[in-house]
Amino acid sequence: MSNGKWIWHPGSFELYHSMLLHNRRTRTRTYKENTPSNRAGQTRSLFYHPMWRVDGPCHNARLEKVATISKEETIELVSNTEIATIFVDDMPYNVGTKIKLTPGTHKVSVEGFKAESFPAFYIKGDTFASDRTYKVVSHTEYNGVSAGYSELYTSPNDNVEKFKFSYKNVPIKNVEKINGGTLFDFGRETFGKITIKNDKIKEITLFLGESKEEALDTEYSQIVVNASLKNGRYVSSPVAFRYVFVKTEEPLDISAKLEYLPIKNRGAFKCENQLINTLWDVCAYTMLLNSREGFFDGIKRDRWIWSGDAYQSYFVNYYLGFDKEIVKRTIRALRGADPIKKHINTITDYTFFWLISIWEYYFYTGDKEFLEDVYVDIKAFLSFLKSRLAADGMFERKPDDWVFMDWSTFDSDGPICAEQIVLARAYEAVGKIAETLCDHDLAARAKKQSEYIVKEVNNRYWSDKKGAFVDSYTSGRENVTRHANILAILFGYTTKEREKRIIENVIYNKEITPITTPYFEFFELDSMCHIGDTRYMTDMLESYWGGMLRLGATTIWEEFDPNKKGIEHYEMYGGKYEKSLCHAWGASPIYLLGKYALGVRPTSPGYKTYEVRPNRMDFGSFEGKVPTPKGDIFVKISDTGCTVLSKIDGGILYFGGKAHKIPKNKRIFVKG
Amino acid sequence: MSNGKWIWHPGSFELYHSMLLHNRRTRTRTYKENTPSNRAGQTRSLFYHPMWRVDGPCHNARLEKVATISKEETIELVSNTEIATIFVDDMPYNVGTKIKLTPGTHKVSVEGFKAESFPAFYIKGDTFASDRTYKVVSHTEYNGVSAGYSELYTSPNDNVEKFKFSYKNVPIKNVEKINGGTLFDFGRETFGKITIKNDKIKEITLFLGESKEEALDTEYSQIVVNASLKNGRYVSSPVAFRYVFVKTEEPLDISAKLEYLPIKNRGAFKCENQLINTLWDVCAYTMLLNSREGFFDGIKRDRWIWSGDAYQSYFVNYYLGFDKEIVKRTIRALRGADPIKKHINTITDYTFFWLISIWEYYFYTGDKEFLEDVYVDIKAFLSFLKSRLAADGMFERKPDDWVFMDWSTFDSDGPICAEQIVLARAYEAVGKIAETLCDHDLAARAKKQSEYIVKEVNNRYWSDKKGAFVDSYTSGRENVTRHANILAILFGYTTKEREKRIIENVIYNKEITPITTPYFEFFELDSMCHIGDTRYMTDMLESYWGGMLRLGATTIWEEFDPNKKGIEHYEMYGGKYEKSLCHAWGASPIYLLGKYALGVRPTSPGYKTYEVRPNRMDFGSFEGKVPTPKGDIFVKISDTGCTVLSKIDGGILYFGGKAHKIPKNKRIFVKG
Repeated sequence: MSNGKWIWHPGSFELYHSMLLHNRRTRTRTYKENTPSNRAGQTRSLFYHPMWRVDGPCHNARLEKVATISKEETIELVSNTEIATIFVDDMPYNVGTKIKLTPGTHKVSVEGFKAESFPAFYIKGDTFASDRTYKVVSHTEYNGVSAGYSELYTSPNDNVEKFKFSYKNVPIKNVEKINGGTLFDFGRETFGKITIKNDKIKEITLFLGESKEEALDTEYSQIVVNASLKNGRYVSSPVAFRYVFVKTEEPLDISAKLEYLPIKNRGAFKCENQLINTLWDVCAYTMLLNSREGFFDGIKRDRWIWSGDAYQSYFVNYYLGFDKEIVKRTIRALRGADPIKKHINTITDYTFFWLISIWEYYFYTGDKEFLEDVYVDIKAFLSFLKSRLAADGMFERKPDDWVFMDWSTFDSDGPICAEQIVLARAYEAVGKIAETLCDHDLAARAKKQSEYIVKEVNNRYWSDKKGAFVDSYTSGRENVTRHANILAILFGYTTKEREKRIIENVIYNKEITPITTPYFEFFELDSMCHIGDTRYMTDMLESYWGGMLRLGATTIWEEFDPNKKGIEHYEMYGGKYEKSLCHAWGASPIYLLGKYALGVRPTSPGYKTYEVRPNRMDFGSFEGKVPTPKGDIFVKISDTGCTVLSKIDGGILYFGGKAHKIPKNKRIFVKG
Repeated sequence: MSNGKWIWHPGSFELYHSMLLHNRRTRTRTYKENTPSNRAGQTRSLFYHPMWRVDGPCHNARLEKVATISKEETIELVSNTEIATIFVDDMPYNVGTKIKLTPGTHKVSVEGFKAESFPAFYIKGDTFASDRTYKVVSHTEYNGVSAGYSELYTSPNDNVEKFKFSYKNVPIKNVEKINGGTLFDFGRETFGKITIKNDKIKEITLFLGESKEEALDTEYSQIVVNASLKNGRYVSSPVAFRYVFVKTEEPLDISAKLEYLPIKNRGAFKCENQLINTLWDVCAYTMLLNSREGFFDGIKRDRWIWSGDAYQSYFVNYYLGFDKEIVKRTIRALRGADPIKKHINTITDYTFFWLISIWEYYFYTGDKEFLEDVYVDIKAFLSFLKSRLAADGMFERKPDDWVFMDWSTFDSDGPICAEQIVLARAYEAVGKIAETLCDHDLAARAKKQSEYIVKEVNNRYWSDKKGAFVDSYTSGRENVTRHANILAILFGYTTKEREKRIIENVIYNKEITPITTPYFEFFELDSMCHIGDTRYMTDMLESYWGGMLRLGATTIWEEFDPNKKGIEHYEMYGGKYEKSLCHAWGASPIYLLGKYALGVRPTSPGYKTYEVRPNRMDFGSFEGKVPTPKGDIFVKISDTGCTVLSKIDGGILYFGGKAHKIPKNKRIFVKG
């Protein structure tokens, strides 16, 4: 009796925790009050309603499995609800009943209901131990789909309603009497619960700050914790902070615990440039803080799952923790429940990136089971998309669609080019997923649609005059932005000849408005490295990312403008400290260094084959590791050549102008 | 500050309570066990999973209202969740804050989240007191729809998560030592909580019975309560029973409380035939027991809301309690949430009856607000229907459709005629609803579709040879059942000439299989009375319903066959006591007597105009009352004539071959 996992209706676990997390955001600004009964500041801790429809889990579930056993087996149902039943060959039994199965073929099924959350089941047994081989029995498209599960919940004692975080103490680095109060500095950005112990104080307000200035600016600091001590003790909800300021100089017993997921950093990077090394560590720590129920955007303000942000975290994850579970959770949380009435996060491109991310997940991990498990969800989004595209399947904006792409000014007369390109990529991804699952019909249709969009993008949006893709084919203005051009190169959606013209007319053309957002920087740098210009990337590491580090950043910020001074850096969206100083999308250097410095990338799903194409960078010797499903790949570039030690088969090292087969578990050194 | 109602996202309250009630059914049979660790009987109290998808409520809600006030007003938010905010002109305030509004135009909005159930709001105030004038703000079709509310929840102290039942003590009528145990007889069928007090007993099993035989037959009695006494006390969940048997002769302090809704019986009926009077009372009591969160089918076994059963309860209600709230709750519970993937209760005709019931609700009550509130739901079902009909809009069976109509054998080669007729009626209802809401486009389309189906029914299904509608137009077998023919007459869907032929060839043709189910008896009797044959109805009251009363029924049974003997009467679906002895659909005599003996019925929505067409019955003088939205109508038929006393305008009395205007609040007597 063992080896079970908790199982549930697909998505219930992720939707439940996603529902909770999306309802934890609080307001971060103080409104001017209009009645004397409201005390200043209280609006800061009020509920901030999610901006999109947030779905709850299914409260009913039915799952079953048919299998043949050759020897006797005893099974027993554990559940998080009393309203649960297990059936053996349609004979019902209670939770906790030990049921002996005789050798032969049996059908084991479970049914349950939980109003407050969702029903989950753990079946002790051998062949019939609960896992994804149990299938849904339902009146919906989920009929026959595999049960949901998580590798985090594999013990019958687990509580699936409580997210399984780890905790560790965060020491205080400095205490300062200042402004008539006390400022506690925890040394670096953190996220977790703050505990206060004091026998005299009953109520105290904590002004938190990602920066010292924010904590001390009690009228404007974003996160305010109104602590009410009971029996001399108060423990806060998890919050983001580095500094805590209280308006008292009385000694206060304050402590903090980091709340985190113990995802091991399997990826690694070291070079002769200490700034780059520090940056890599800071990026890794930024990822740690944002890796929770799913990949968060940032930890101070939204604390939501945004599909575009998450998309970039996935790639960083493939070069850092290689944690499949968090990717799968994030994808499921973003999917939401039926009916699909809006794009993911209400943003058109975020739906497209969601579809692409499923293929990318498979390409890095080789986890075909997940493709099978979410295929029904992919198809649900395809139906939704169909109802929201132009008659010929090209992108067009429908009412209530948020066309984001980037914080940039596009010529948005008609649909913008970059959206078309991402949509084409989404169909390409769906086609490859369908092909993998042997759904040849959908594979062919999706591939055709992708190719049609690519062809039409090249027909409609290409300006021979500009030698570039323009935003709009309807306005006649021929406005060029970098976005579509970057993506066309990155996804290989135009001819070699046009690529060359784009590189000349857009990429290296200083008159084309530069990318200023770290969000789109991810795509730009990926694309620049892709065309071989790693120098552009390393310059950005030095200037943009290095700029934050030189200002003392302990995590990567949401945005950085080197021209700003002092607390100007903390301003955003018109709020004095609204900028998030720990934002996941800033961690992309880990991905870029892994993929383009170490040069490691899969060439077929799950690293069945892969290549190592290291680039000599401008920071001397370097070495690092890239995780893969079956083991890490170590790469070192020194003055004399390149060393690779790989735990897996299937690799080719491209170095010194030649291809070298990489042996498994055996160090290879190539001069050059 | 007052006059508020609790408000919520439309349907949340009904879906929440419907979810709970649909998950309260327990298994009613003992399975043969296959392992020694299971004790006999335990399977009887195990969870019985609902047979259709049961939806939960929205866990997030946003509602708002804009209005202009001419004098100062103070508002305050009360909520069932801590995660709730009220905004005045976009300025947020906490629950419990008293906010002064200055004269002028304001926007007041509320937002909230509750994971365990659904967020609900109560705004104290005057103009801005919470009610349906608050509208939904959401990313779904519900945007702009009125907030949900219930007239049962109008105090800030109410708990919307607890259904507001009343309780009263049910005295024990008899205690008998028998079969080595004790049998408690509560005198008549009841539904409620059983309390046991005893200082010595820790565990005791209660064997419940709607009949004495069932309670004593401990191996087969359907409802078994395994009572564990704590501190000498046990209170059961609400259950159906008349008898309670325990396997001990020790004195046991047992008591029971009826759980019910205090809906006043505004309808009344008395005649010279005592059996009919008793029957009316028993029917009324049957309705009382089945009138709960919604209209239940029966109280012992399913305790679910079935659309077809509820449809009949609505009509009885219009002649008994005239409780609008329970009709609205039932309709909303049946609607479920999006996406609509199956028919209501998975039954095709039950979707059609649901649509018809909304029009009928409006026709009896004149409550146009409800039409407005559920119009979005009606349209959702129309979209669903469109995807599940034949290309020409006629009915056809799709995979997973349960085509019920009745427990009868139809020639179901191709779609059966009766389904087409009910579908036509549904479109007719939708057309009239749309017309009422000035949606002329949909009104015209729905009317056209209804007329098309009626025309095609007359083309395809009429057999001139049989002089009747046949079940199937595809098989060539020309099989005639009563159902389609009854409905065609009742809904006026064929020519006068064909009606005559149907009456002769079907209705009075003993060779056509009679209706044997009380479910369809409702339609048959309605139809017979409709063509003027009230004698057929009163004969049934005497034989069918009277037959149950003569066997001591205290509530109306699910089914009755006079040819059965003893406990054969309690058998159904292959279970010894599976038959429900308190089944709502048996209460139709209240409707039939009100509509056809007293002869009262609206002729325009909400009794704006109405008619009284009493029929002299075969039970001597009689009198009674029929409720309407604005007051009751009293009718009395004596040897000498007809008396009417009405509280409302707009009535015409048809009696003695003439039409007489009925004055308001003034007795009128017409000889005849």
